[in-house]
Amino acid sequence: MGSTVSTHHSDHPSLLPACVVKKALILLCETGQETLLDTMHRMKILGLISLAVASLVIGILIGHFAIIPPQLSWLRKTSKDGDPKYSQQLHEEIKAEEIHKNLKFFASRPHIAGSVQEEEVLVKHIHDTWKSSLHGSKIYNYKVLLSYPNASDPNYVSILSSDGVESDIAAKVEKILSPDQNDSTVVNPFNAYSPSGVIVGDPVYVNYGTVEDFQYLTRNLTMNLTGTVAIARYGKVFRGDKVNNGAKFGCAGMILYSDPADYVVGSLDRVYPVDWWLPGTGAQRGTVLIPDGDPLTPFYPSTKSAFFLDEKDIKLPQIPVTPIGYNDAVKYLSKMSGMEVPNTWKGRLNITYRVGPGFVPPYEDSKIKLHVKTYNVQKTIRNVFGFIEGQYEPDRYVVLGNHRDAWVFGAIDPSSGTATMMEVSRALSKLLQKGWRPRRSILFCSWGAEEFGLIGSTESVEELGKVLGSRTVAYLNVDLAVSGNSTLRALATPILHKLLFASAKKIENPNPEEVRAGRRSVYDTWVKNQPSSHDPNIPRVGELGSGSDYAPFLQIIGVSAADLSYRHDQKYSIASYPMYHSVYETVDLVSRLMDRGFYYHQAVARLWGEMALRLADDVILYFDCVSYAETLKTVVNDVQNSYGAKFLEHNITLSSVEEAVGEFLQAAKVLQSRAEKVNRENPLEVREINDQLMQLERSFIDPLGVAGNLQYR
Amino acid sequence: MGSTVSTHHSDHPSLLPACVVKKALILLCETGQETLLDTMHRMKILGLISLAVASLVIGILIGHFAIIPPQLSWLRKTSKDGDPKYSQQLHEEIKAEEIHKNLKFFASRPHIAGSVQEEEVLVKHIHDTWKSSLHGSKIYNYKVLLSYPNASDPNYVSILSSDGVESDIAAKVEKILSPDQNDSTVVNPFNAYSPSGVIVGDPVYVNYGTVEDFQYLTRNLTMNLTGTVAIARYGKVFRGDKVNNGAKFGCAGMILYSDPADYVVGSLDRVYPVDWWLPGTGAQRGTVLIPDGDPLTPFYPSTKSAFFLDEKDIKLPQIPVTPIGYNDAVKYLSKMSGMEVPNTWKGRLNITYRVGPGFVPPYEDSKIKLHVKTYNVQKTIRNVFGFIEGQYEPDRYVVLGNHRDAWVFGAIDPSSGTATMMEVSRALSKLLQKGWRPRRSILFCSWGAEEFGLIGSTESVEELGKVLGSRTVAYLNVDLAVSGNSTLRALATPILHKLLFASAKKIENPNPEEVRAGRRSVYDTWVKNQPSSHDPNIPRVGELGSGSDYAPFLQIIGVSAADLSYRHDQKYSIASYPMYHSVYETVDLVSRLMDRGFYYHQAVARLWGEMALRLADDVILYFDCVSYAETLKTVVNDVQNSYGAKFLEHNITLSSVEEAVGEFLQAAKVLQSRAEKVNRENPLEVREINDQLMQLERSFIDPLGVAGNLQYR
Repeated sequence: MGSTVSTHHSDHPSLLPACVVKKALILLCETGQETLLDTMHRMKILGLISLAVASLVIGILIGHFAIIPPQLSWLRKTSKDGDPKYSQQLHEEIKAEEIHKNLKFFASRPHIAGSVQEEEVLVKHIHDTWKSSLHGSKIYNYKVLLSYPNASDPNYVSILSSDGVESDIAAKVEKILSPDQNDSTVVNPFNAYSPSGVIVGDPVYVNYGTVEDFQYLTRNLTMNLTGTVAIARYGKVFRGDKVNNGAKFGCAGMILYSDPADYVVGSLDRVYPVDWWLPGTGAQRGTVLIPDGDPLTPFYPSTKSAFFLDEKDIKLPQIPVTPIGYNDAVKYLSKMSGMEVPNTWKGRLNITYRVGPGFVPPYEDSKIKLHVKTYNVQKTIRNVFGFIEGQYEPDRYVVLGNHRDAWVFGAIDPSSGTATMMEVSRALSKLLQKGWRPRRSILFCSWGAEEFGLIGSTESVEELGKVLGSRTVAYLNVDLAVSGNSTLRALATPILHKLLFASAKKIENPNPEEVRAGRRSVYDTWVKNQPSSHDPNIPRVGELGSGSDYAPFLQIIGVSAADLSYRHDQKYSIASYPMYHSVYETVDLVSRLMDRGFYYHQAVARLWGEMALRLADDVILYFDCVSYAETLKTVVNDVQNSYGAKFLEHNITLSSVEEAVGEFLQAAKVLQSRAEKVNRENPLEVREINDQLMQLERSFIDPLGVAGNLQYR
Repeated sequence: MGSTVSTHHSDHPSLLPACVVKKALILLCETGQETLLDTMHRMKILGLISLAVASLVIGILIGHFAIIPPQLSWLRKTSKDGDPKYSQQLHEEIKAEEIHKNLKFFASRPHIAGSVQEEEVLVKHIHDTWKSSLHGSKIYNYKVLLSYPNASDPNYVSILSSDGVESDIAAKVEKILSPDQNDSTVVNPFNAYSPSGVIVGDPVYVNYGTVEDFQYLTRNLTMNLTGTVAIARYGKVFRGDKVNNGAKFGCAGMILYSDPADYVVGSLDRVYPVDWWLPGTGAQRGTVLIPDGDPLTPFYPSTKSAFFLDEKDIKLPQIPVTPIGYNDAVKYLSKMSGMEVPNTWKGRLNITYRVGPGFVPPYEDSKIKLHVKTYNVQKTIRNVFGFIEGQYEPDRYVVLGNHRDAWVFGAIDPSSGTATMMEVSRALSKLLQKGWRPRRSILFCSWGAEEFGLIGSTESVEELGKVLGSRTVAYLNVDLAVSGNSTLRALATPILHKLLFASAKKIENPNPEEVRAGRRSVYDTWVKNQPSSHDPNIPRVGELGSGSDYAPFLQIIGVSAADLSYRHDQKYSIASYPMYHSVYETVDLVSRLMDRGFYYHQAVARLWGEMALRLADDVILYFDCVSYAETLKTVVNDVQNSYGAKFLEHNITLSSVEEAVGEFLQAAKVLQSRAEKVNRENPLEVREINDQLMQLERSFIDPLGVAGNLQYR
C-alpha cells in the first residue's frame, strides 16, 4: 500500500485539506528525515493524519459518551423506575416468622390507648426500632379525651325485682378461656364515652337498633319507648348510631350484645378455644362516640397550646350503654314479653325472640337494671413516625399507617397490622443496607387511640395537614392485616386500583390449595372470590368510608388512600370476624386458628411493601385517573337509574353533573396520555405530571365540608 | 532529537507500555519501511504514540466539555437566573405614551360592571390582544347579583315641608364640567345594594358614621335615632360599615356625602377643572354590601351549575342610602338644629355643624326626604386571563391582576391600572419576540365587578382555587396605578418586601425634581417620604387588608401578594384621592392634572414588570421568610405591649404564641440558609425549596376561617 498514492498533490484538490493539516502535524511528528523521498514522506504524513483523526474521534466518543458528567448521570438515574431486583429482594426479605415474633411482642399484653403498655412500652419499641434502622423517627403527643370503665366498680346488667332484689347478673368480666388472657391490665367490657348512670326500666328488644328497627316498634307496634332499656344486637350499623337512635326514640339506656347469628357459624359448641367462633362469654367493646378525633378540639390538634372545649359543650353519647355476651343476653331475652319479632329480627339463641316491653311472669313486675360507671378523662396518646428519606424527591411522601392501640390484646385489631408494618419497615431497612434508596420519602405512622374514634391520625392530620396534604402521594393503611384467610379485601380510591391489581398479581398466593387449583397469586384468588359487580374480570375494590385511619387523610386533606387485609370467606354472613374487640383476640387465636405459619400476614406485608415500593420508586406515579372518571360516571348512572323518576317529579336534573363528569373524563384521558408521553429525562416535566396526578384526589375536597359536615370534605 | 533514545528497549521497562501500544499503532500507521534503521523507526513510533495520545486527550476534552449533551445543556440553563438584559429591555420597552393611549381606550366611556362597554367591548379588546400577543387567553363568565340606580327615576334628597312641598332638591346627576363627561351611559350617583325606598324623617348628622360616632349621639347626647335619616360624611371607615351602623342604631335611611375637609386641600375655588380637588357637584359612588363575591353564592363560584340563594335569604344592606356632593349637603347641614358638634366632627363647609335631630326654623316642621330607587339584578360579568407559558416550570404561576370595571369612566380607578397592565403585557410580548421565555408561567387577570365587592376575583378563586392555590408563586395586584404623583405606596406580605425593595431600587425616579435632589430611584423617594416606623432606613410597606382583588388570593387560598400604586403626598390629610368614584375621574383629569406625560404610570408599570420578571425567572424565589418571622415577632411584641396588662388581669398569656413565633423564626432561618446553599443544578432540590417558600404563606390559612369568618382564612 502507499505506493499508489499520487505525489502530485496539487492536482488533487481533495487532498488539500490533508496537506494543510500536515503542516500543523509536522510539528508533532518531527520526523526530521528531510533527506527521505517526498513520496514516502507524504505517504507517512497521510498515515499520521489518519492516526490523529482516528484518535481524536475515539477521544471525542469517549469524552462524550463514556465519561458521563455527574449531573447527566444524576439526570439519567432520576429517569429510571426502581430496579426490579429490589422488589424481588423485598418479597424475599419479608418473613412470616418475623411477623409472628412481632405479634407476640405487640399482642401479649393489653394495650388500650392511654395505658403505660401502649403509650410507653410499645411507643418506645417502635421509636427505637425506626430510629436505628430507618433515617429517623419522631413521636407526636396529644392530650385527648379518652374513656374507661371503672376497674373497681365494673359495669353490669341484672334483673331487678319489685322488692329490690337483683338476679341474673351479667358477667362483669369476660371469662378466661386460656391462660394467656389472664392479665391484670385487661379492661372490662364497656362502650367508650357512654355516660355513667344506673338505669332501671322495661327491656325492649330493638334488633340491630337501626332507625328502621326503632320505627317498626314505634310506628307498626305503636310502642312508647320512653324510659325503656333497649337491648340491641351488634351488626349492620355503627354502634354509635344504635345508641344515638335509642336516645332519639326515648330509651333511657341500652345494652349491646353479640348474637350468635352474627358471630358464630355452625354449632355453638365449636366456639373458641375449639374454633375461631365467638364464645358466649365474649363481649364486644367499642366507642359509641360519633365524630372522629379528640371531641374536645374539633378540627384542631390537641397540642399543648390547644383550646380545649368543656365536656358539657360538646355532644357526647346521651344514654348509658354497655356490651354483654350472648350467654348473658339470653337470660334477659328469654324472659321478654310482648309480640314475637318478625323473622328478620330473629337471632340464633334457642329462644322465642319477643320485642317486650317488660318480662313475662314471674318477672312481670321486674325491671332490667343497667349499671354503668364508665368515665371520661384527658390522657396523653402518642403517634410514632418513622421515615426513609427519598433520594430525588424527599418532599414527596408515601405514607404507610396502622394504629397501635387495642381494646385488649388486639392480636387481630390492630396488632396483626402492627406486626406486619414492623416487618415491612424491617425489610425496607434491609434494602437500604443493600444500597437501595427510594426516589420519594417513605413515612411509617403508628397511630394512637384509633379505637376511640381515629383520634391519633385525626389529630396529626389536623396538626400537619398542610405539609401532609401538599406532599403525600398516597396513604396506604393496614388496620388489621388478617381477619381471616380466604381472600384479599381492599378498599381504595379508584386512582389506586390499577396499582393494587398489578401489585396483587405479583404476590405469591399464601393458600397452597389455591395454588394447586392454578391460582398462583393473591390476585387470582381475589378475582375469583370477589369479582367486581361491573366487570367480573377484575376484583371488587370497596369504597373507603370512615372506618379507619385513612379517613382523615382522604376525607379532610384529600389524599388518595387504600386499606388492605386478608379476610374470612364471604359465604359466612357474619357481622365481622367473630372475636372482634373481645378479650379473646389473642396470639393464640391468630397463630393456632387463623394463620398458622403467618403466611397470610406475609402476603399482606408483601403486597403493602410492593405498593409502597412502586409508589416510592416509579418515575411516573402508577395512578389511573381515567378509571377514576369512569367510576364517577358509573356512580352518576347508578344514581340516575335509582332516583331518575324521583328527580323528574321534583324537577331536578343531573345534566350539570353528567356534563362535569364527561369533561372530567376527557381531561383525565388527556392527563393520562401526557403521563405516558412525558420526557422522563426532564425532572420538572415529570414532577408537573406527578403533581397533577397526586392532586387529583385533592380536587374533590371542599374545605367547607360535605353538606356542612367538616369531618367529610 | 531522537538520537539519544536507547535502542535497547528491554533495558528500559518504562518504555514497555509504549512498545505495547506501538504494536497496536503499527496497524494504523503502516509505514512499511522495514528497511529503515531501527533507531529511526522507534523514534518515529514514539512520535506517533505522542500524536495519538495527544489527539485522544484533546478528543476526550472536546467530547466531554465542548460537545454538551442536550440534557446537560438544559440542566445548566435551568440553573441560571434570568438574563439581566431582559430586565433592561423590559424597562426600555415600557413606554409612557403607550399607557396614555391605553387609558384613552379604556376610560373614554363609562364601563360599569354588567354593561355592554365593560363586558363586551373591553373584554373583547383584552382577549384579542392577549390571544394574539401572548401564548393564550381565556374568558370566564359568572352570573352574579349586581345593583344599579333606576335611570328613569333617579335617587335624590330633598326637604319636605309639613304640607308636602319639596324644596332644596339635591342634584340627581353630577353636573358636567367638561365635554368628555357628556355620555348617555353615565350611571347616576348611587350606593350599590341599597334597598329601594322613600324615607321621610328627621335629619341627624353622624360625622363619619363609626360605631363611636353613633355612640356619642345615643350615649353622650342620649339621642333616640329611631326613624331618623343619618347624614354621614365619607372617610375613616368603609361605607358599608357606616350603613350597617346606621341600621343598628335605628336610622331609617342614610345620606353619604363628601365633605371638603376630606376631599379638598386649599381654596374651594381651586377645584376641578382648575385643579384635581373634588368640586361640590361630585358624589362618591360605591357598594355598601359587606361580604365579598357574589352574595347569592357565598364561598362557591357563580358558574352555570351553581346553586343560587334567594335574595331574601342573604344579608343585604338594610336601609336605603344614596350619596350626594357637598354643594347639596350644605343645604341640609346648614339648616340643622340641635347641639353644635364636637371639634373633631366639624367639616370645612362654611356653616355651624349641628347634630340635629331636625331643622331650625322656619324648617322646624320639615323633614328630610330620601328617594332611593336602586335595584338588584343578576347579570353576567367576565374575567379575562392571558398567559405566557413558562419554559421550565409551566405549572408555577406568577399572577398579575387588575380589575377592569369602573363606576363611571374610572380613569384612575381602575383604568390607570388597566392601561398599565396592558403595557406590561405588551412589553413582555416584545421580550418573547426577542427570544425571552420565562422559567415559570405568567398569568394576567382582568377582573370584572371588583367595585361591587371583589366579585370577579372572588368567583375565580372560588372556582379555580385548587389550581391557583397549588401553583401560584405570588399575586401582584395593581388596582389603580396612579392616584397621585408623590411617592410609591405598596402593600405586601412580609415575604415579598425584599423583592419589592430590590425592584424599586431599579426603577428610574419619574420625578425630575427628586432626581435633581439625588434620589434617582423610585425607592429613594419612597424611603424618604414613607420611612418604616420600625426602621427608618427602609420604606414602610402597608399590610394587605380586603380592599382589592388581592384579598381572595391572600385571605382564601393563602397566596403571597402585593398591591402597588403611586399616590398623593401624605401631607394632605384627605380620605382618598379627591375624585374617587365620581364622574370626574376622566382621562382629562389624569393627563392634565395628575400625570402629565404618564411617567408615574410608566414607573409603576416598570416596577410591576420588574417584580414579575424576577418572580418568573429567578431559580430560587427571591422570598424573605426571615423577615416574615421578624414581622410576626414585632406584631406579637406590639400586642403584648398594648394589651399585656389586660391579658394579665384575665390570666391570659402569650407564651404559646411567643414560643411558636420563636420556633418559626428558627425554621425560617434554616429554610433561608438552605435556599442560599441549594445545588442549583438539581432542579428537584430547587423545586423543593421553592415549594416550601411558596407554601409558607399557605401555612397561615385556616380553612375554617378566622373566628369562623370564611372570607378571611
